Amino acid sequence: MLLIDIDRASTVPAYQQIVDQVVRLVEDGALAAGDRLPATRALAEPLGVHRSTVIRAYAELWALGYLESRPGSYSTVRQRARPPATRAPEGGTPAPQPLIDWERAATSASRRAHADIRDQERTRIAPAGVIDLARLAADSRLAPQDEIRSCLRSALARQGAEILDYGDARGCLALREAISRRMRAHGVSVSPDEVLVTNGAQQGIDLVLRLLARAGDAVAVESPTYSMALGLFRLHGAALREIPMRADGMDLDRLERSLARGRPAFVYTVPNFHNPTGVTTGQSHRERLLALCERRRVPIVEDGFEEEMKYFGRVVLPIKSMDEGQLVIYCGTFSKVLFAGARIGWVAAARECVERLAALRRYAEIAPSTILQAALHDFCERGYYDRHVSRMHRIFRRRMQVALRALRRHVDPAWAEWQEPGGGYLIWLRLKPPRR
Amino acid sequence: MLLIDIDRASTVPAYQQIVDQVVRLVEDGALAAGDRLPATRALAEPLGVHRSTVIRAYAELWALGYLESRPGSYSTVRQRARPPATRAPEGGTPAPQPLIDWERAATSASRRAHADIRDQERTRIAPAGVIDLARLAADSRLAPQDEIRSCLRSALARQGAEILDYGDARGCLALREAISRRMRAHGVSVSPDEVLVTNGAQQGIDLVLRLLARAGDAVAVESPTYSMALGLFRLHGAALREIPMRADGMDLDRLERSLARGRPAFVYTVPNFHNPTGVTTGQSHRERLLALCERRRVPIVEDGFEEEMKYFGRVVLPIKSMDEGQLVIYCGTFSKVLFAGARIGWVAAARECVERLAALRRYAEIAPSTILQAALHDFCERGYYDRHVSRMHRIFRRRMQVALRALRRHVDPAWAEWQEPGGGYLIWLRLKPPRR
Repeated sequence: MLLIDIDRASTVPAYQQIVDQVVRLVEDGALAAGDRLPATRALAEPLGVHRSTVIRAYAELWALGYLESRPGSYSTVRQRARPPATRAPEGGTPAPQPLIDWERAATSASRRAHADIRDQERTRIAPAGVIDLARLAADSRLAPQDEIRSCLRSALARQGAEILDYGDARGCLALREAISRRMRAHGVSVSPDEVLVTNGAQQGIDLVLRLLARAGDAVAVESPTYSMALGLFRLHGAALREIPMRADGMDLDRLERSLARGRPAFVYTVPNFHNPTGVTTGQSHRERLLALCERRRVPIVEDGFEEEMKYFGRVVLPIKSMDEGQLVIYCGTFSKVLFAGARIGWVAAARECVERLAALRRYAEIAPSTILQAALHDFCERGYYDRHVSRMHRIFRRRMQVALRALRRHVDPAWAEWQEPGGGYLIWLRLKPPRR
Repeated sequence: MLLIDIDRASTVPAYQQIVDQVVRLVEDGALAAGDRLPATRALAEPLGVHRSTVIRAYAELWALGYLESRPGSYSTVRQRARPPATRAPEGGTPAPQPLIDWERAATSASRRAHADIRDQERTRIAPAGVIDLARLAADSRLAPQDEIRSCLRSALARQGAEILDYGDARGCLALREAISRRMRAHGVSVSPDEVLVTNGAQQGIDLVLRLLARAGDAVAVESPTYSMALGLFRLHGAALREIPMRADGMDLDRLERSLARGRPAFVYTVPNFHNPTGVTTGQSHRERLLALCERRRVPIVEDGFEEEMKYFGRVVLPIKSMDEGQLVIYCGTFSKVLFAGARIGWVAAARECVERLAALRRYAEIAPSTILQAALHDFCERGYYDRHVSRMHRIFRRRMQVALRALRRHVDPAWAEWQEPGGGYLIWLRLKPPRR
C-alpha cells in the first residue's frame, strides 16, 4: 500500500502531487528499483481521483525516469542509471576521460582553420604600451556612440514588436533601400532587391563561396591578399590560383593566362586600399579586369571593405559601377567606418544571385538580427552616417599624414619601401634585403 | 599650352586644382583622347608649383582613368571606355543581357537549397485573417519590449566604446557566464569556456556540420525532423540516415543497427517538443541514446531549442546533463522564448570542440554583434529572463489547453490523432486515411 495523499485544498494539480510523492518515496529509499506500483485503477479509487489523473502521473514519472515500463501496463520502479553529471566547477572528482578526440573528428579543412586562428592569436598579444600595427579595425573610440544609442532607442520605440520578429533573410527593406542609395553615390545602380544585408563583409564572401564553389573548384585571388578571406577559401576547399600583386594592382597579364587555362568559380579582388599592400587600382586597371572576366563569363567578387575611406584625392569608382553584364558581386561593410561590433555589411549583385544567397543564409542562420538593422537605417536617414564619414576622413587624413611623415623621417629608404596610399588605414612596408 | 591656373588663396590643394581643371578640359572636349600632356617639369615651372605637385596630380588623373600612360613618362589623354553603368531605376534603356546564369553557376547543393526555400515561401502566404499554423516562432507581441529597450540603453551607457569593437568570436564572456548558470539550472555543468554564443541555434548546427561533416559523410537524424536542419544537412552534402520517430522518440533499435553499420559524423536529435511531432523523450530513452553513442563514440547534437518551454509537469533533463564522456554538443537559443529577432543562441560542448567551432565562426563572420549580447546579459542578470519565462509558461499553458480543448471538441478522432505535448508550441496532427 502506497502512502500517498491528495491535498484537495492545494493549488498543485492532483497528478503532480502523486508525482512529487512517488519521487520522494524513491529518493528516500522507501521504494526500491524493481518495486511494483499499483495498477492505475487500484490507485485511483482510494485516492478519490479519476483514473486518467493517475495515468498522467505515471506517464510523467516514466518520462522522468522513475518508472520502468511504459504507461498502461504494470509499472515498476526503475534505477535511474544516470544522475546529472555532477562535475564540480573547481576541484572535486577528476573529470572522466572524454570519448571524442575533436582534433581527429574534425574535417581536415576545419583542422587547418583552427590551427591558423590559433597561430594568429598567439602572435597577436601586444605587451601593454605597444601599438599593434598588424591589427585592422576601426578605432572604436571614434564610434558615434550618442547617435547610435539614440537610433537604437528610436528604432525600438517606433517599430515596436515587428522588429523583434524574424526579419527578411535578405535584411530589412528600409536598410536595403538606404544601402542602395549609398551605392548610387558610388556610381553603382542597384535596387533594394539586388542587396543582401550580411553580418559584415566576411559573411558575404562565405555565402558566395557556398553558392559558387564546390570543394576543389579554383578561385583566383590576389597574392598576397586579405588573410581572413584566404583562410575562408581554404576552409571551403578552394584550389587557389594566386595572381601576383604589382604596384598598380593584380597582374592582369597573369590573370588573363590563368583564365585561359580554365574558368575559376570567381575572381576575388580588393581594388581599394588593398589588404595588405594598400594599393588602389586605377580606372583602366578596373576596366581591363572587368573586360577579361566578361569575356570568360567569370564572376568577380569585389571586396569594397573600405570604399568610403578615400580621403586623399578623388574617388575611383568601384568595378561594380561599370557592371552592365551583372557579373560583379560587390561586398561592402559598415564595420570598418562605423564600428566593428555592429557586424553589418552587404552584398550587391544581380537579383538572381542575391535570391540564391538569401536562401543559403536562411539555412545558415535563418535571418539577421533586426534591431541593429533598424537602428543603422535610422543612422543613415538622419544624415549621421555622412557626417561620421566626413569626420573619419578628417581624422584619418591627419593620422595617415603623421604616419607617413614619421616613416619618411625615421625609416631609412635603404631598409624599407612603401607606397603612399590614397586612403584607408593601411601602409605596407616592404623590408629590403640587406646590401653587402 | 594648357589653360591651367593655380588659385593660391583657395583651400583646395594645388594638385587637386590641376586635377579638377584637366578633368573639365577633357569633359568639355578641349582635350581629346590621344592628346599629350606637358611633361611634369614643363607644367610645374609656369604654374609656380613644385614638380612633385604635378606628379601627384598626374597620378590622380591616371587613377581616375583620364590619362593613358603610367606617371613618370609622357602622359596622353585616355578615352574612358566605361562610364558608370547608367541603368535607370525605372524604364529608360533596356538592361543588357546578364552574362552569368546563376542557376547554372550555383553548386547543386545550393541550387536545391534555393528551390526548397522558394517552395516554402510560396506555400506560406496566408490570406488576411487566417492564422498560419505551420509557422513556429515566438509571438513577438509577448516580447518584453520595455525591458529590452532598457537593457540596450544601459549596456551602451555602461560599457561604452569597448562593446562597439570586435568581440570575442566565442561571444562576450559575461553572456557566456550567464548561459553557463542557465545551463546549470537544467542540470548541465559547463564552464563559460565550454559555451559558444551563436546567431540562433541554427548557426550552431551549421558550425557543427562545418567542423565534423565532409560532403558525403553520414548524419543520423530523426524522421521526420526539423525542416530547416534537414535542409542544412543536405546543403552540406550529408548522407542522411533517417531513423523513424515513434511515440516515445527516435527508434533506438533502428539507431543501434544503423550505428553498427558504420559511424555517422553525429546523431542529431530534438528530445524536447520534437519538431514537428511534439514528442518529448523520457529519461530512459535519453539514457539509452547516450549509451549507444558512447559505445560507438559518436557525437550527439542535442537541439534544445525549446528547453525552457516545459510548462506541463516536471522537466526531463537534457541528455547533456548526463554527458560525462563529453560527446554531446548542445544547441540552445533565446529566440524561441524571448523574441525571434534577437538571433542569439549558443552551443555547449567540450572546450576542445568549442575552440574549433569558434575558429570556424571567425572565418564565417569574424565575431557576433556585441551590443545585443551585452543587452541580453543585462536582461538575464536583472532577473528579467526568469520572469519572462514564467510569464511565457502561464500564457502558453493556457493557449495549449485552449488548442487541445478545441481539437477534442471539433476534430473527429476517426479523422486525426495527436499526442498531448508537455510544453512548447507544437501539436502534431496525423490525419488518418479514410476508412471504407
